[in-house]
Amino acid sequence: MTDDDPISVPVTLLRPPTDQLLDVVGIGSPLVDVIARADDQLLDRLGLTRGSMALIDLDQAESIYASMGSTIEVSGGSAANTVAGVAALGGRTGFIGKVATDPLGDVFTHDITSIGVEFEAAVEPAGESGTGRCLVLVTDDAERTMATHLGVANTFAPGDVDGVLLARTKITYLEGYLFDLPPAKEAMRQAVAATHDADGSVALTLSDSFCVERHRGDFLSLLDGDVDLLFANEDEIISLFKAASLAAALDAIEETGVLAAVTLGAAGSVVVTPAGRFEVPAAAVTEVVDTNGAGDLFAAGFLYGITNGSDPEASARLGALCAAEVIGHLGARPQADLAALAREAGLLP
Amino acid sequence: MTDDDPISVPVTLLRPPTDQLLDVVGIGSPLVDVIARADDQLLDRLGLTRGSMALIDLDQAESIYASMGSTIEVSGGSAANTVAGVAALGGRTGFIGKVATDPLGDVFTHDITSIGVEFEAAVEPAGESGTGRCLVLVTDDAERTMATHLGVANTFAPGDVDGVLLARTKITYLEGYLFDLPPAKEAMRQAVAATHDADGSVALTLSDSFCVERHRGDFLSLLDGDVDLLFANEDEIISLFKAASLAAALDAIEETGVLAAVTLGAAGSVVVTPAGRFEVPAAAVTEVVDTNGAGDLFAAGFLYGITNGSDPEASARLGALCAAEVIGHLGARPQADLAALAREAGLLP
Repeated sequence: MTDDDPISVPVTLLRPPTDQLLDVVGIGSPLVDVIARADDQLLDRLGLTRGSMALIDLDQAESIYASMGSTIEVSGGSAANTVAGVAALGGRTGFIGKVATDPLGDVFTHDITSIGVEFEAAVEPAGESGTGRCLVLVTDDAERTMATHLGVANTFAPGDVDGVLLARTKITYLEGYLFDLPPAKEAMRQAVAATHDADGSVALTLSDSFCVERHRGDFLSLLDGDVDLLFANEDEIISLFKAASLAAALDAIEETGVLAAVTLGAAGSVVVTPAGRFEVPAAAVTEVVDTNGAGDLFAAGFLYGITNGSDPEASARLGALCAAEVIGHLGARPQADLAALAREAGLLP
Repeated sequence: MTDDDPISVPVTLLRPPTDQLLDVVGIGSPLVDVIARADDQLLDRLGLTRGSMALIDLDQAESIYASMGSTIEVSGGSAANTVAGVAALGGRTGFIGKVATDPLGDVFTHDITSIGVEFEAAVEPAGESGTGRCLVLVTDDAERTMATHLGVANTFAPGDVDGVLLARTKITYLEGYLFDLPPAKEAMRQAVAATHDADGSVALTLSDSFCVERHRGDFLSLLDGDVDLLFANEDEIISLFKAASLAAALDAIEETGVLAAVTLGAAGSVVVTPAGRFEVPAAAVTEVVDTNGAGDLFAAGFLYGITNGSDPEASARLGALCAAEVIGHLGARPQADLAALAREAGLLP
């Protein structure tokens, strides 16, 4: 890479900035994370698969919570974490999702609106299941294992997206987890159409390799004209193409022509563009405490960069910086002033 | 200090260990901390005094919360934090306090019982005020400013202490904050008597220099036979004796004959015993994120040490280690395995 040879990006991502436009609107399940340290014995006893996300019902949620040690509660949800990160960098953002009229719903709504995110909330009476929560068990190796009770987010449907935010955004960011819910899947397809109708771009994160297993066909078909920008980690991109290796998976995504950012944990990330691919190292971390949110915050930095005039390489460096901040503490929302960190690192003016 | 010249401790602190006894029972206000980063402008706008604790009503709590950025929620309360620290070191502990039948009460109860603390809860219907919460605003210098809505803890009274735990503990640990509440003050006096009747010792933390201003007479009279072990920071001990300097305050506490551990922030701590005084340096910290809980966790390490056969100097070193862990992250409850950290540091076998 040299200055004479900039990586080009799809033209739909280069929508000219105006004050009226939002940088990113996320669509996903609003969750409050309930986080505790755990050991492998507890994961085994609870029947949870290390590093994965399992959907659970309310009884299971109460049973697992009773087995967890002292917790901290932090707003979460994959796409919501990403939007919070874009906002922390100074971006203009929106979020669409379904919460209940209960204390967890109040917490989620407070936290996302307090940082300036426009929240298009579908609100349901609390009823029995309430606002979604994600029980996060963090082992000593900083790996996180998640059990999610979606609560009212389970019934997210096309009627919950009114399209007003989507007509005003440069990028609509979809979390793959939503494809586990048939009505939400339909809502996503409508969101793609609404975004493209308004000349915006669509980004998708694959979320989880087990999620990719369940919805490989859907995700592959989305790469054919629906999705302009794909986020995945190594396991997810390999699973998507049933590839024999990371290299083969990167070849496969390059053939689709979709801009893709693939995170590789401590090995950094690789960005695949129509004009070639390049690697970006991970940013320095003093101590990795909790990897929850690493992918979400990488996406935040990348999305902020790409919607604010940075090239894909600089955007990926910003993503690496944001990911490094979030894995240094418990919880998947940024705790530091990301914009200040980025300026100190010379990644933002 | 040499091995030939051990610091002696008051005989009441040397109660022989048995499996039936608890190491520490805390009495205090059960709170859930709601923590956000803030800047000085916000503190000014909210009329809060940097570094202090203000008592607020429910309307004020809602108004301040609405002004706060994205939060994390963690169980807190000064004495409860200390007891949680003793439990994290492997100590046997109990806690006495008043919660409501509401989600915050459920969170507090889950968190303290999940780590093995015996919780003698006075429980009230939620009503309007609910379980207590502490809004914690953390500025860039890692200082915390607190606004506490005590909720049902506001009516803590003698009838809420049944004495069963106090008859089984080596040390009863009282938080000075409770002296702001007249019925709680009476409950504290009864707890002192119940503890001493059962041959236990009483520890008191002064909590806050403004609290000392309000209750100087009460605290001084407690040093005359009621309190065996005093925890304070520099501002608090100076305020207690209206002393001209730290040295003068240390002279004054030494004259009382009460064992005292005085924390000095980054300068470590000084322990005053009937046989002389000594200093212990602060433990190393990579980055000070949030000083909330530093004093609480110093007390935890000191109390665990002194009730498990360590001398005051080793106990103060354990306190320094626990304080260093808690100021490395947001929230006043330990996140790391304190017992493992202490073993690594050679402070526990």
